[in-house]
Amino acid sequence: MPRIVKHPELRRGELLDCAQRLFLMRGYDNASLNDVIAEAGVSKGAFYHYFASKEALLEALAERLAQQALAEVRGVLEDRSLDALARLNAFLLRTRQRKIEHAAAEWALFATLLRPENLVLFHRINAAASAVFLPILAEIVRDGVKDGSFDTFDPEGVAEMFMQLGNATHGILARALASGDASEMNKAIRALERRIRLYAIALDRLLGLPDGSVRLTEPGYLRAVMKARFKAPDARPAAPTRAPIGAC
Amino acid sequence: MPRIVKHPELRRGELLDCAQRLFLMRGYDNASLNDVIAEAGVSKGAFYHYFASKEALLEALAERLAQQALAEVRGVLEDRSLDALARLNAFLLRTRQRKIEHAAAEWALFATLLRPENLVLFHRINAAASAVFLPILAEIVRDGVKDGSFDTFDPEGVAEMFMQLGNATHGILARALASGDASEMNKAIRALERRIRLYAIALDRLLGLPDGSVRLTEPGYLRAVMKARFKAPDARPAAPTRAPIGAC
Repeated sequence: MPRIVKHPELRRGELLDCAQRLFLMRGYDNASLNDVIAEAGVSKGAFYHYFASKEALLEALAERLAQQALAEVRGVLEDRSLDALARLNAFLLRTRQRKIEHAAAEWALFATLLRPENLVLFHRINAAASAVFLPILAEIVRDGVKDGSFDTFDPEGVAEMFMQLGNATHGILARALASGDASEMNKAIRALERRIRLYAIALDRLLGLPDGSVRLTEPGYLRAVMKARFKAPDARPAAPTRAPIGAC
Repeated sequence: MPRIVKHPELRRGELLDCAQRLFLMRGYDNASLNDVIAEAGVSKGAFYHYFASKEALLEALAERLAQQALAEVRGVLEDRSLDALARLNAFLLRTRQRKIEHAAAEWALFATLLRPENLVLFHRINAAASAVFLPILAEIVRDGVKDGSFDTFDPEGVAEMFMQLGNATHGILARALASGDASEMNKAIRALERRIRLYAIALDRLLGLPDGSVRLTEPGYLRAVMKARFKAPDARPAAPTRAPIGAC
């Protein structure tokens, strides 16, 4: 069979697909760089051409996930026909829609990232998302301050609080994940709704807006997201394969 | 030399001292349970009598640090002569005083915990501190709601935000740590003061209080804390010793 020479960017993307699948399957701490190389079916030399270390691979993976998330919301972020609050709410709405659209994959990723052996992976992914979204949120807040609709002396600080409160929500979601039957899930949903209401009020008041201006959720959203986890694909490891890259 | 039989609680405490010193010196991920046992100069059997695993040792260590912190602020938390806001501010003030009193040790611990090999250790210590302080903060907020001085529908949520904003401050402190000369340090201090002012306002407004009610800092405090790091003891590893427990 003739050797197929692939475009470097394509091959790099395939290596990342492969690493992502392996890390989510076995856990980041449990999968060595040699495992990734074996799974990808490439030579060590070929692999090191793209990534200097497991650390570098992790960085690239986290960066790619953040950029993928950004790509799906970029449209609303750049919509200059909206004022700052409308743009912020459109961004938050688009993020929620994205979570529903990708619910099964998001839940599988989330459940995997909460495993202790993935603490480093989880943090790196959060850090990469913050690095991508912080300046965008800060710009929206600065725009609002400029046009007089927001009132704060620290737009970057408010933007960071958006990210922090988002991460704090993950913590409650994680506890809700442990809920077993329908009655426990209902309780978890109510607790989450209450907490998100608090976070929204914190942001409203920090921006000098009336309560209810920033919309972090909407009726039925949390129930839809929570229910979607029962449709999540099984994240348990399949039998190890040595498939050539591309099939990985 | 006759064998000295120690009280079990004393011996457990000494093993924890030993583990703490070793984890801070070499990094949590780099120090094995065998290293701890060798450093403590006890038999494996004696060690396993107290701790079933490295994980159990970490739990006990994090729990002890949290309890030590609690012991030093318990007085103000139980002072029923103060109303809720006065008690909250007395607690925050006592926490700051404690940071100044233990500045050298706190900075050494903090700098060590920020190293990548200590991510798990850092998280466990934060989680233990949250478990200890969250119910106490929530009780203060509930008391304030009861006596009508605070206004919130979610005292536990506000208490969690106190902890989250504290952790967020650590992140800025970490960046400030990287500051080299005096002018950079001044810049870092100003950035921190600004951010802490934002956090205080967020808490004021969440509690339905006028801006400036919750006092997270005071003039000169951050400068005093930042300067104290230059007095921090050297945390670099000393030559490995096999000292008997007690000398550890």
